[in-house]
Amino acid sequence: MTDPAAQTVSAAILVIGDEILSGRTKDKNIGYIAEYLTNIGVDVREVRVVPDIEAEIITALDALRHRYTYVFTTGGIGPTHDDITADCVAKAFGVSIDVDPRARALLLTRIAEKDLNEARLRMARIPSGADLILNKVSAAPGFRIGNVHVMAGVPSIMQAMLDEVAPTLKTGIKMLSETVRADLREGDIGTPLGEVAKANPDTIIGSYPFQDDGRPNTNIVVRSRDPQKLAAAKAAVEAMLGQVRAGLRRTA
Amino acid sequence: MTDPAAQTVSAAILVIGDEILSGRTKDKNIGYIAEYLTNIGVDVREVRVVPDIEAEIITALDALRHRYTYVFTTGGIGPTHDDITADCVAKAFGVSIDVDPRARALLLTRIAEKDLNEARLRMARIPSGADLILNKVSAAPGFRIGNVHVMAGVPSIMQAMLDEVAPTLKTGIKMLSETVRADLREGDIGTPLGEVAKANPDTIIGSYPFQDDGRPNTNIVVRSRDPQKLAAAKAAVEAMLGQVRAGLRRTA
Repeated sequence: MTDPAAQTVSAAILVIGDEILSGRTKDKNIGYIAEYLTNIGVDVREVRVVPDIEAEIITALDALRHRYTYVFTTGGIGPTHDDITADCVAKAFGVSIDVDPRARALLLTRIAEKDLNEARLRMARIPSGADLILNKVSAAPGFRIGNVHVMAGVPSIMQAMLDEVAPTLKTGIKMLSETVRADLREGDIGTPLGEVAKANPDTIIGSYPFQDDGRPNTNIVVRSRDPQKLAAAKAAVEAMLGQVRAGLRRTA
Repeated sequence: MTDPAAQTVSAAILVIGDEILSGRTKDKNIGYIAEYLTNIGVDVREVRVVPDIEAEIITALDALRHRYTYVFTTGGIGPTHDDITADCVAKAFGVSIDVDPRARALLLTRIAEKDLNEARLRMARIPSGADLILNKVSAAPGFRIGNVHVMAGVPSIMQAMLDEVAPTLKTGIKMLSETVRADLREGDIGTPLGEVAKANPDTIIGSYPFQDDGRPNTNIVVRSRDPQKLAAAKAAVEAMLGQVRAGLRRTA
């Protein structure tokens, strides 16, 4: 028997930016990264959003990087004074940070030397020992140091960076997922669904109510890394749903 | 002189649910709550997303509730086995939890007694000592215990609950905000904008690049609780932008 838990790769997402916490900018990165990593066999276990404050960024980064296989940050790597992510990451890892010749050369592929002012050079400040994360959208790179991947906050750039990072990641046995439409209200199936969940311990069964053309309906999502256990749990859910529907027809 | 920092009211958002971390469901609550609370003078300082795992929920809840004026949770208060938020909150506060007669009566306003099965009664399980949070969309209530507000994950229900909660909240001096369109690229203004930020210490100045009809542009967001300091910082930003534009015209 293999232990599926031993083959999981975990990740956390750290979103950095006052504009998300004030609600001025609605985050589009969490859902994108979560779905992307799930699809390649990396489990996202936690997300945090913190402001542009050094101590907050470092505390969150340290909590997450010591706990999960990978951390993915978004935001705070632009050319202005409020872009402090790279400096915070360097502090967290206890390494120096300066303008990186590789990153400077990258910027010069898109920016004329006369325009490469102090502000733009901030985008070439990379912690010592980090690898650059290139992207096809902008010249400014992200970087990887240890298990931390530092990416842009602008969704199109972040997505391009994630495409570069993905092939370098260790991935676990992919979490498989099946969705069963209950055609029943969540409250009608809660108790027997709990029994199915208990009888299928290596699966994770979630219940998600939704409005189906104005009528309450429920999606049951069954997840497992083991295709046979997934199929067995899905069959058990379907059998249970059939019984509940038949019972409701009898009492109607 | 009043100290604006002494009059701030802080909050954290705790999103509970495997479906957010797997990317299956894209969260719509964080941005809504953040904007809503900011508008009434409550500062959101941190967001966390955790899975449907008791230890994770309790650890995050304890970290946040001891640190911020308020915590707002979303998700995990439905009728199925994966809805464990209420039990976790009771454990965190060290109180008992059982079917609450007030909550049961509420459910009976929309659900026939014969349909009030064990699963639906889960939605009436409320920690001892909590106040109910009603809502106009569904019969099932949220609740408030201590500084923690427990709300639904379904956005329409969460929003209705937040409307009920808002008048009960202590609010601070509202953070005021002004946005100035730079008509310049972020890299052109980074250094002088940093100087303006340094010269206006009771304001928070953020810089947000965006694509303006396909051309790079920047929004400068100036925030302060003090209207005069806000106006002074905004004027300083505008003066700086004028100088940078003039300088670029000269070198063009």
